[in-house]
Amino acid sequence: MKALGLIVEYNPFHNGHAYHLQASQEKTNADIVICVMSGYFLQRGEPALLPRRERTEMALRGGADLVVELPYIFSSQHASWFAKGAVSILHHLGAGVVCFGSEHGQIDPFLQLADFLDQNEHAYNHHVKQFINEGYSYPKAASLAFRALSPDTSLPDLTQPNNILGYHYIRSIRELKSNMKPETIARHTAGYHETQISQASIASATSIRRSLINHQQTPEDIKHTIPSTTKHIMQAYESSGNDYFHWEQYFPLLQAKVLTLPVSFLAQIYEAQEGLEHRFSSHIKLHNNFHAFMEAFKTKRYTWTRLQRFAVQLLTGTTKAEAQTALQPEQADHIRILGMNEKGQSYLNHIKKQMEIPVYTKMPREKTPQQTLDERACLAYYSRLTPKERTAKWKEEYQLPPVRL
Amino acid sequence: MKALGLIVEYNPFHNGHAYHLQASQEKTNADIVICVMSGYFLQRGEPALLPRRERTEMALRGGADLVVELPYIFSSQHASWFAKGAVSILHHLGAGVVCFGSEHGQIDPFLQLADFLDQNEHAYNHHVKQFINEGYSYPKAASLAFRALSPDTSLPDLTQPNNILGYHYIRSIRELKSNMKPETIARHTAGYHETQISQASIASATSIRRSLINHQQTPEDIKHTIPSTTKHIMQAYESSGNDYFHWEQYFPLLQAKVLTLPVSFLAQIYEAQEGLEHRFSSHIKLHNNFHAFMEAFKTKRYTWTRLQRFAVQLLTGTTKAEAQTALQPEQADHIRILGMNEKGQSYLNHIKKQMEIPVYTKMPREKTPQQTLDERACLAYYSRLTPKERTAKWKEEYQLPPVRL
Repeated sequence: MKALGLIVEYNPFHNGHAYHLQASQEKTNADIVICVMSGYFLQRGEPALLPRRERTEMALRGGADLVVELPYIFSSQHASWFAKGAVSILHHLGAGVVCFGSEHGQIDPFLQLADFLDQNEHAYNHHVKQFINEGYSYPKAASLAFRALSPDTSLPDLTQPNNILGYHYIRSIRELKSNMKPETIARHTAGYHETQISQASIASATSIRRSLINHQQTPEDIKHTIPSTTKHIMQAYESSGNDYFHWEQYFPLLQAKVLTLPVSFLAQIYEAQEGLEHRFSSHIKLHNNFHAFMEAFKTKRYTWTRLQRFAVQLLTGTTKAEAQTALQPEQADHIRILGMNEKGQSYLNHIKKQMEIPVYTKMPREKTPQQTLDERACLAYYSRLTPKERTAKWKEEYQLPPVRL
Repeated sequence: MKALGLIVEYNPFHNGHAYHLQASQEKTNADIVICVMSGYFLQRGEPALLPRRERTEMALRGGADLVVELPYIFSSQHASWFAKGAVSILHHLGAGVVCFGSEHGQIDPFLQLADFLDQNEHAYNHHVKQFINEGYSYPKAASLAFRALSPDTSLPDLTQPNNILGYHYIRSIRELKSNMKPETIARHTAGYHETQISQASIASATSIRRSLINHQQTPEDIKHTIPSTTKHIMQAYESSGNDYFHWEQYFPLLQAKVLTLPVSFLAQIYEAQEGLEHRFSSHIKLHNNFHAFMEAFKTKRYTWTRLQRFAVQLLTGTTKAEAQTALQPEQADHIRILGMNEKGQSYLNHIKKQMEIPVYTKMPREKTPQQTLDERACLAYYSRLTPKERTAKWKEEYQLPPVRL
């Protein structure tokens, strides 16, 4: 059985994702599709629009056979750690191939790119440092450093977000010495940063989230951009009285938490560097909402994404010491099953015996270092609900079985 | 000018307080009345029903000439620290006499009690330890230890809360080697722990708070228990759209904060002892409101008051290290003026030159260790408001002058 691995957020699952899933399956002739999906907090430092359960069901209805969780410590991180976590899970689950979407769309130039950066590692790192000293953010410095090496124009452009992720997936496969084959297909979508939803059937997840949250549109209003299965899941979610998760809802808690802890505590939070904790604490006192705070705070060095990721670490209370322990294996220390269909279930039964890391369907009492942080991510994610709603949701972590189709 | 010092909470200022103020003034023939008042969080570990400003005005309208703040680090503490902070402030303000309310009502037996406990210090401490080892809370162990010494029945009974405070005021005066004279008058009120308001004109502050919060009564409903000045201040407070501060409002934030910090952080919070932080964190997850949480949590050893005080330290994020630094002088490191009338103002001008600790009318940028914690208490106190309301209130700390009558 040939297993295809996909690394996803599905925030929410839309037509672009459906296209990518199908096209990847066709390209790789896979018998089974495994998705490793971020849980509660996503790569750019945002809470997931809907809880994992709903997003898992969207994935299964959209063609996935098995959905597993990317542990929290990898999910709200820059591309390098994000890739290590996700690739290691697909490797342990026996995926023969991982197929990522990229702006470039051809796999061979990615492999050449990885070789090129291996050969020029010293010069590359030197340039990165130089640009950081000039006050650029890490992602900007990395992309300027790449250009400074005058790469062949046939290589993927490392200023594009999905090319960057793709490159890191390949690096992680090599570091793991995995036999997993990388593959890519061109992203068939609006640009990642595009925010306006159009009449086209493929819109960015960002524009979909904005339509739902800022413009209070309904799933019916955006139905041309999402599969009907996604639409039905969202409608059921809404009609049960739930609303979508976004940063503004967390601002009152984030503000209160940051201002009622000593700065010496904040300095121990993961990603607190260069006095960021002092600036964060003095700025957040002045603003009434997350957007205004971020707009006033972001600089050339502290990008919106960097600040959001730090805000997530503050919200979950993840310390440098905890992150170090959780990241020490440089890969996932467990696999959490979020959902499966029959095919996924039988695949899982088949490979379970040869798994090198433990597999869980619920949160256990005795936790691995990564699970300790997964639980805090869950506690933080639901913290914006009322205490009564929270306690119900927290219990589900320990009680509810995976979604089954 | 003979200055009388009173140590108060005025939560809120009621007929019993008015009686105590007048009777103390008559008994001591004082020219001026100075009140040192707890700020945002009170001795039994509760948020003040109304902000300092309103309670300051109540005090001034009720006969006080000068109202100053008891710094946070002394205000939510057991009697010994509470007394050290309050007595040191009255001493620095040149009060010639401090007059406290007590169940006993005679000063000489209090002085004899202090001598008696000095003489029996060793045996007393031995008994306290023994009872604590048997699982009693500190206050219970202290009162059992006192009884075990078979004190003369003429001595004040140290199982009564106001007698305990009185004893500690006398100890603090002696430790400071202050010339301030202690005086006491019998409390003319309902018992401190009484919760039902009656038709009598003197009711406990607890029963008044309960009437306003739990039974949603209006200041008009309880007018027989409070001076008309207090009633008018409360009515103005309510009609400006404000509501009273109480623990249930803080529960969502407290719960979220405790559960989204590593237990290693909680262990560094002041008053975290004997693994209290672990128990606190695992219990608070299970409950929807403060009352249910406390009811389920309290034990023979962990009294309601002890738990509430720890909850206050968690809410303000006060660490053991910060408390140690702030308590190191064993007295107030500054005086904050909350309000005054003309007489209070001229008294203050008169004694200002000979003051040994700095006097402030607003929160300064450069803070003493105690002021750093005062500011966090303010941030924590208003944290239950919306971010917009919070930022307005926080600014007042730095901007508004004292209340003047």
